[in-house]
Amino acid sequence: MPAPSVLSDIVFALPDVHPAWLPDAAFRPVGSRRLALGTPADGGAPAASEVLATLRAELDRATATHGGAVVGPQDAADLLLHLSPAVPTGFRLERSGGRVTVSAADPTALLHSWFHVVRRGEAAFASRPGDPDVDEHHAPASALRMLDHWDNVDVHPVMGQVERGYAGGSIFYDAGQVRPDLSRVTAYARLLAAVGVDRIAVNNVNVAAREARLLTDDLDEVARLAAALRPYGVRAHLSVSFAAPMTLGGLATSDSCDEDVRAWWRAAADRVWAEIPDFGGFVVKADSEGQPGPFAYGRDHADGANMLAEAVAPHGGLIHWRAFVYNHTQDWRDRSTDRARAAHDHFAPLDGRFADNVIVQVKHGPLDFQVREPVSPVLAAMPRTRVALELQVTQEYTGQQRHAVYLGPAWSEILRWRPWGDGGATVADVAAPAGGFAAVSNVGDDRFWTGHPLAQANLYAFGRLAWDPTLDPAAVLDEWITLTFPDAPGPLREAVHAILDESWHTYELHTAPLGVGFMVRPGHHYGPDVDGYEYTPWGTYHFADRDGIGVDRTRATGTGFTGQYPAPWRDVYEDRETCPDELLLFFHHVPYTHVLHSGTTVVQHVYDTHFEGVERVRAMVERWEAVAALVPDDVAQRVRERLAEQLRSAVEWRDQVNTYFLRKSGIGDLRGRTIH
Amino acid sequence: MPAPSVLSDIVFALPDVHPAWLPDAAFRPVGSRRLALGTPADGGAPAASEVLATLRAELDRATATHGGAVVGPQDAADLLLHLSPAVPTGFRLERSGGRVTVSAADPTALLHSWFHVVRRGEAAFASRPGDPDVDEHHAPASALRMLDHWDNVDVHPVMGQVERGYAGGSIFYDAGQVRPDLSRVTAYARLLAAVGVDRIAVNNVNVAAREARLLTDDLDEVARLAAALRPYGVRAHLSVSFAAPMTLGGLATSDSCDEDVRAWWRAAADRVWAEIPDFGGFVVKADSEGQPGPFAYGRDHADGANMLAEAVAPHGGLIHWRAFVYNHTQDWRDRSTDRARAAHDHFAPLDGRFADNVIVQVKHGPLDFQVREPVSPVLAAMPRTRVALELQVTQEYTGQQRHAVYLGPAWSEILRWRPWGDGGATVADVAAPAGGFAAVSNVGDDRFWTGHPLAQANLYAFGRLAWDPTLDPAAVLDEWITLTFPDAPGPLREAVHAILDESWHTYELHTAPLGVGFMVRPGHHYGPDVDGYEYTPWGTYHFADRDGIGVDRTRATGTGFTGQYPAPWRDVYEDRETCPDELLLFFHHVPYTHVLHSGTTVVQHVYDTHFEGVERVRAMVERWEAVAALVPDDVAQRVRERLAEQLRSAVEWRDQVNTYFLRKSGIGDLRGRTIH
Repeated sequence: MPAPSVLSDIVFALPDVHPAWLPDAAFRPVGSRRLALGTPADGGAPAASEVLATLRAELDRATATHGGAVVGPQDAADLLLHLSPAVPTGFRLERSGGRVTVSAADPTALLHSWFHVVRRGEAAFASRPGDPDVDEHHAPASALRMLDHWDNVDVHPVMGQVERGYAGGSIFYDAGQVRPDLSRVTAYARLLAAVGVDRIAVNNVNVAAREARLLTDDLDEVARLAAALRPYGVRAHLSVSFAAPMTLGGLATSDSCDEDVRAWWRAAADRVWAEIPDFGGFVVKADSEGQPGPFAYGRDHADGANMLAEAVAPHGGLIHWRAFVYNHTQDWRDRSTDRARAAHDHFAPLDGRFADNVIVQVKHGPLDFQVREPVSPVLAAMPRTRVALELQVTQEYTGQQRHAVYLGPAWSEILRWRPWGDGGATVADVAAPAGGFAAVSNVGDDRFWTGHPLAQANLYAFGRLAWDPTLDPAAVLDEWITLTFPDAPGPLREAVHAILDESWHTYELHTAPLGVGFMVRPGHHYGPDVDGYEYTPWGTYHFADRDGIGVDRTRATGTGFTGQYPAPWRDVYEDRETCPDELLLFFHHVPYTHVLHSGTTVVQHVYDTHFEGVERVRAMVERWEAVAALVPDDVAQRVRERLAEQLRSAVEWRDQVNTYFLRKSGIGDLRGRTIH
Repeated sequence: MPAPSVLSDIVFALPDVHPAWLPDAAFRPVGSRRLALGTPADGGAPAASEVLATLRAELDRATATHGGAVVGPQDAADLLLHLSPAVPTGFRLERSGGRVTVSAADPTALLHSWFHVVRRGEAAFASRPGDPDVDEHHAPASALRMLDHWDNVDVHPVMGQVERGYAGGSIFYDAGQVRPDLSRVTAYARLLAAVGVDRIAVNNVNVAAREARLLTDDLDEVARLAAALRPYGVRAHLSVSFAAPMTLGGLATSDSCDEDVRAWWRAAADRVWAEIPDFGGFVVKADSEGQPGPFAYGRDHADGANMLAEAVAPHGGLIHWRAFVYNHTQDWRDRSTDRARAAHDHFAPLDGRFADNVIVQVKHGPLDFQVREPVSPVLAAMPRTRVALELQVTQEYTGQQRHAVYLGPAWSEILRWRPWGDGGATVADVAAPAGGFAAVSNVGDDRFWTGHPLAQANLYAFGRLAWDPTLDPAAVLDEWITLTFPDAPGPLREAVHAILDESWHTYELHTAPLGVGFMVRPGHHYGPDVDGYEYTPWGTYHFADRDGIGVDRTRATGTGFTGQYPAPWRDVYEDRETCPDELLLFFHHVPYTHVLHSGTTVVQHVYDTHFEGVERVRAMVERWEAVAALVPDDVAQRVRERLAEQLRSAVEWRDQVNTYFLRKSGIGDLRGRTIH
């Protein structure tokens, strides 16, 4: 089985690019053994697929590097991987007498099993005397595990090459075209395969003129991207503009009920699948922040989505339709309009009306990827709809990869949250069998992929949690450390845990308090500006005055947003006495002197947490310095630079927020610390 | 005398470009008469200059359009213009028996006299029976009347083609090069000649890489611009980078004391004047907002400026050296550093050290072109230095040419201000004989030159006030109306006065109160954001807390800025009881309950003025609607659109500022009006 042409050694070790969680050394336990790629259990030949060729190349590379050997399927091997149509989704892993056999029904699942064994390392093979044999079935919680790239082909005048990208340029595009050399894209697909992600959307959901053409005139460019992803079993999706029939097709309308429009989309889909037979589908941001949508024609989002669904259905394609729809030209004077309500108001009434191949993609919170929000009630409101949970790996509001913020614990909390209370289903239970999991990638052409080397852990964790939402995020981080720093001594492991385990909460401590959100600099969203969005049309307010702060979203006296939740949360959130402290200001407007469950007042909580947040960051800096010599110089230095900025930024957050509330409330710090 | 090649009918009436204050109809009184261009009084031939050729073309055009005639200098003419070496600076105007004779020693002054007669119109010729003959000498108050263009050759990623430009693109540059067709530049020079401005700096004081090359490799492009300006007697200046010896010359330093650096600048200047013999000189922004300067080498600004002065002196060139030097990376926590002090702190000690051909160009206020600031104390602190007053015609902080804000009254107030109190010299008295007047232009490639048609009045007024700072700004506006709308009936004239006369004060009413400044959206500086700059490094704070607001700049308890003024102002500003209301918050931090001289409290003043400001804008809208039919449709419509935006913006200012102070102070409006 020859290695496919797009695979070459360069993909395994890109020059000047960090190997992330697949350094050669991570393959030592498996690469030093005897490996075999087997025929299916029925004795037939393996399907001649690119993915199997990739797998063979992986085995060759690992053994060539570490002294093992690839043997025939009938030979005695330490690890035999083989196709077996009888295995359900995922793969089966059997270990008997030190010999491991993995089997899967399709090549991509078999590739995933390979990386599973790599991840387990020595433990995959070793058993202590007396240990029972192993026979495990590993299947992903959801069939849909996808990353969205907000990459632009042309540099956008405001958003740049990658919207909300903090890791340099795009790995796909440069200067208005798809890059000539896509080996890095294949290397990226390899990283994704190693965490089980098998779909990506290759362009920004805000589709500008140049990017719109990817659907038509420049489809060959998408085909090149798909070809670069294919060896690792990753399928390409495309973000499209609802107005494409007009802007690209020259029609007078984009109305979903217009027969010419429907025909245009069908023809467009036919062309896409003719060019890219394993194409995934379309992602759509409609009627959102200026993007065109069905509202212009008096249609609703089910009408719009179903039209596209009809076009892609013959090809088995999917429509990911984002629920991020709200009024972004709100009047700040109007306290009755509540952006938090918008997605539920728009989408919940449509439950049951979406076609089977429409995924309604719901941001995890009702606002916009804040460090702390309640979980979106939309996720519990559409039982007859394939809802997907949308997360944000790129750290738009969580430090922009200048701050070390490990988001695994945040996502885990969301995934495990039970909208119907104890005993009810979790968010993961809702999304996994339906629309699955999607997230905005944090990858760019930066040497470390993610700007901050430690931000790789977020990309890793998304894949792992999308595969198994019940995983402990600290254990996932531990996997990442083991793979990324294969020779890591204990102190390094402990230090990375110390830096990252609580880093999400640390970020929460020194930024916007008690779930109130935003308070960031408008536009770029980095660094503090307490009133930055207070008088804007964006619908993200805190309403701080000299007496108190917070947004009254109760049914009794506020916007009624609490009513979008099922019991018990509709009542838990409604009452400030039962509302969790960390969400108090999201749901209630309270005096600065209100006493939290923690026993301190709101304003004292602001001071305490902001002082504590800085001290925690200071400890992170010190912790890193103590172990920096244990990692390669480039990693040590990059992390050092970012941590220095994180400390500077945390001090800035602390001082601006504390000063703001001291000036406004007139209430001093009980502990007499310096507030400027 | 043939018309020079660059002049053609197209310059007199550019297609699709508004004629501003030189419509054909404005020439009717003079163009319907017999005109003569005379030989000098000594009988010699007129100097064969391009400017005289221009003047001849002007006479031809005016008479051809309006039925008059150009006759020989010996014929009986209604208006004879002639060169006469005996006339001092400016021109002499004699009228006897209905015949007008103007004479000047140089062609540009004679051209200015032509536009003077045009401006006077019928009144230049008509006298009532019994009126005495006229014999007047008209000379500009200052020899230096200059406009600075912050135009970039390349589009700047943040600032665009024209930094702080609100009238479209640049008339000089497009897409990275000097425009092929510069007829509009010549038409611009014509407008300037008609108001007596005879120097412009053709590129941004923030000199980027592309623009730096104008000094060397691309000098031919500057020569083309100079050639387009020359027919109307306007000389080109160039903004240069202090680091040019390194970035362009490949030297290892830009130190002003390095002999290679000095030689490089001398050679650069030699090349410039060899290419452009009437070149004006260099403008420099050094050690300011990131621009390089002498501080890097431990030198001061006299060292830096004098080095350049030495290089240009052999050619009669000037160095305009800006005094806008301050720490733009200030810590907002540090209340002892005061940006208002910076220019005086840096420059006053250098008085007497600058070379004769150095102009120290001083912004009118100590901060940055705010709608209300005290006059910069630097203007009174450097008696042995050629200081120039820098104004900003482009409305960066005064509505960005979306608001109708006539700045004539503001400038007049500055020019007439007496730093040493009653009986002492005015600012105009200081600057006029020294460095003169410079201003940032508000012109772009917009059809109306200035975006807002009424913003033309600001460009007009700058020229007129630079020529004669004692002019009444309302009278200047009246001139502008007469020229721009030659057939204007009385109601239009009255309406434009009603809209513009008090418009500066109206803008002051509904924006930042009592001289405190800023409160604008960071970056673009349009629209309100009360705390927008409060926690930034820019040094522009208001320090509002729940009790009060303002910056203590007193000697007694504040930054000591008041001490930079001579008596009596150092004492007037020091005492909150004598400090003028409109500057109270610039100099003092006071409680919201502080009672102003006006009798109202600070917070009630905020409410009252913000409500009043909006009502005034509403009246402007109504006033325009009543007369819009009296002007061409394009003017009517553009002004209408801008006034609608002005009203929207004024409402936004009112509501954001009022809400901010209600939330902060807790003190309601005494008159019970709606504050959100």
